[in-house]
Amino acid sequence: MDTVLISEVGPRDGLQSVKSTMPTTHKLAWIDALASAGLREIEIGSFVPARLLPQMADITDLVRHAMTLPSITVMALVPNLRGAETAIATGIQKITIPVSASEAHSQANVRKTCAQMVDEVGRIVNYRNAHAPQVKVEVGMSTAFGCTLQGAVLEDDVVRLAEALAEAGVDEIGLSDTTGMANPAQVRRLFKQVRDAIGDRTGAAHLHNTRGLGLANCLAAYDVGVRTFDSSQGGLGGCPYAPGASGNVVTEDLVFMFEAMGVHTGIDLEMLVAARAILTAGLPGEPLYGMTPDSGLTKGFVYADGRYPLNIQLLSVNGTCA
Amino acid sequence: MDTVLISEVGPRDGLQSVKSTMPTTHKLAWIDALASAGLREIEIGSFVPARLLPQMADITDLVRHAMTLPSITVMALVPNLRGAETAIATGIQKITIPVSASEAHSQANVRKTCAQMVDEVGRIVNYRNAHAPQVKVEVGMSTAFGCTLQGAVLEDDVVRLAEALAEAGVDEIGLSDTTGMANPAQVRRLFKQVRDAIGDRTGAAHLHNTRGLGLANCLAAYDVGVRTFDSSQGGLGGCPYAPGASGNVVTEDLVFMFEAMGVHTGIDLEMLVAARAILTAGLPGEPLYGMTPDSGLTKGFVYADGRYPLNIQLLSVNGTCA
Repeated sequence: MDTVLISEVGPRDGLQSVKSTMPTTHKLAWIDALASAGLREIEIGSFVPARLLPQMADITDLVRHAMTLPSITVMALVPNLRGAETAIATGIQKITIPVSASEAHSQANVRKTCAQMVDEVGRIVNYRNAHAPQVKVEVGMSTAFGCTLQGAVLEDDVVRLAEALAEAGVDEIGLSDTTGMANPAQVRRLFKQVRDAIGDRTGAAHLHNTRGLGLANCLAAYDVGVRTFDSSQGGLGGCPYAPGASGNVVTEDLVFMFEAMGVHTGIDLEMLVAARAILTAGLPGEPLYGMTPDSGLTKGFVYADGRYPLNIQLLSVNGTCA
Repeated sequence: MDTVLISEVGPRDGLQSVKSTMPTTHKLAWIDALASAGLREIEIGSFVPARLLPQMADITDLVRHAMTLPSITVMALVPNLRGAETAIATGIQKITIPVSASEAHSQANVRKTCAQMVDEVGRIVNYRNAHAPQVKVEVGMSTAFGCTLQGAVLEDDVVRLAEALAEAGVDEIGLSDTTGMANPAQVRRLFKQVRDAIGDRTGAAHLHNTRGLGLANCLAAYDVGVRTFDSSQGGLGGCPYAPGASGNVVTEDLVFMFEAMGVHTGIDLEMLVAARAILTAGLPGEPLYGMTPDSGLTKGFVYADGRYPLNIQLLSVNGTCA
């Protein structure tokens, strides 16, 4: 029985794309519900100044609480050394750094060249080594499959950047389809090439559903050995039509796909869908995406580990939990 | 450069799932637009008594017109010998017969056992051989991946049914995920087994997006040699939440996936999306699905055959054609 790690990025990637700010009480309840549903890695926020990202102002409270949940790896995004220092001081277990594969995107996003970001990552790794060697450092390579500013991103550039980051001491390097431009053949090619270059340090697939290819791209990545997948409950914040919006892969549909294929995620879909109630309460009016919650599980559905669901219907007729 | 055939089933599978009836003028315009956009096989309706399916009452007019378009294979669904006789009399080029892999579904749908349907198919093939040997006979095997009535459908049953239909003289036998229960591993297994049994007579993948797995399942089928894919423009009629609704794969997103992968479909996405105007005019209020029309093509997009689009934006900001 193969196993994959679903890395839930809704509390960071989802919430930062939503206009309103989810109250801290709801975020805490959501994190609890995600952990109870079996999520084992949760990206709970970003260490970015609150004046820049008010949705993430309560990150320290979230970390403090999340660290009491033994079943999860608590992860947060840090864009630079300063953020990494703050994050590490909270006792967090894993930090993730976004590094753009596209020079244009790197400049637009963080006003650094790709090479300058590699240097920054090196400084973060050195700080981690000196002060908190148990903390995992991941890089998510943004625009690895294409950039809305520069268009195509050369696959050689992606591979060389992955090598440079591995050289700098990063524990795992994943590829992110920030702009939803990836196709399955490209996903297979690129992850294969990166794995040939950096081996076991090949990390997560962070794929988007901007053009409907999210799950096909996840399947393609799985086919070439990827075993960690970023996704967002309800595809939160994932209005794929708005320029710059995220279009995240929906956790519920991704979990259904894997479990139906006999691949173990450890996630209970009934409990996960029940957690939607927290989202609708904490972000009133915010649309949630995904097909499986409404369609329910299939008749005769069995989880990969042999468990049966209590009820194949996940949501009641009026859209609340069954 | 690999090539796939997209078989557009919107005018039949889509329209029969929609409550209102599209006016004949719009249907004719739609068929013209589909042909102009490069679709090469169009399922234009069903030969079913008009009192049972009023949406299909104008089928003979549609066939007469469609037969004037040299670039397309004109196909229609026939549920029995009587329908086949009527269809063949119109001069149609291809007929498709739905045969359920699930006994429960067969009884509920046509009040025959699977074996009785195989006999009916044999009679249709014999009639074709005697009266119109140029007409192609296809079977779409419904509920091949699972049934909402009986649950799991044994893979052996699917293979044996395929063999029986090939024995009966059917030209191609495709597998249909009528209930949207398929997963990619199952799709690969089943199409491989069917191809091992009946070889070149292995036909189309008719997959649904009921749980978000439509394109992942199409990719899986492509991986094991399937080269014909049924889909519906705008996922028409594809409200996947309503019990019994179709949840068809969206043609626009499917075409984007293949072309982005370098697989030739022959379809012009700009012209195809422009045809949506006919749908919105002919079926006011009917929701259209799919991501690619709103997101547009990717920056730097090139069709598999080397053509560039005129404009990567497919729809204007207010949802009309760009």
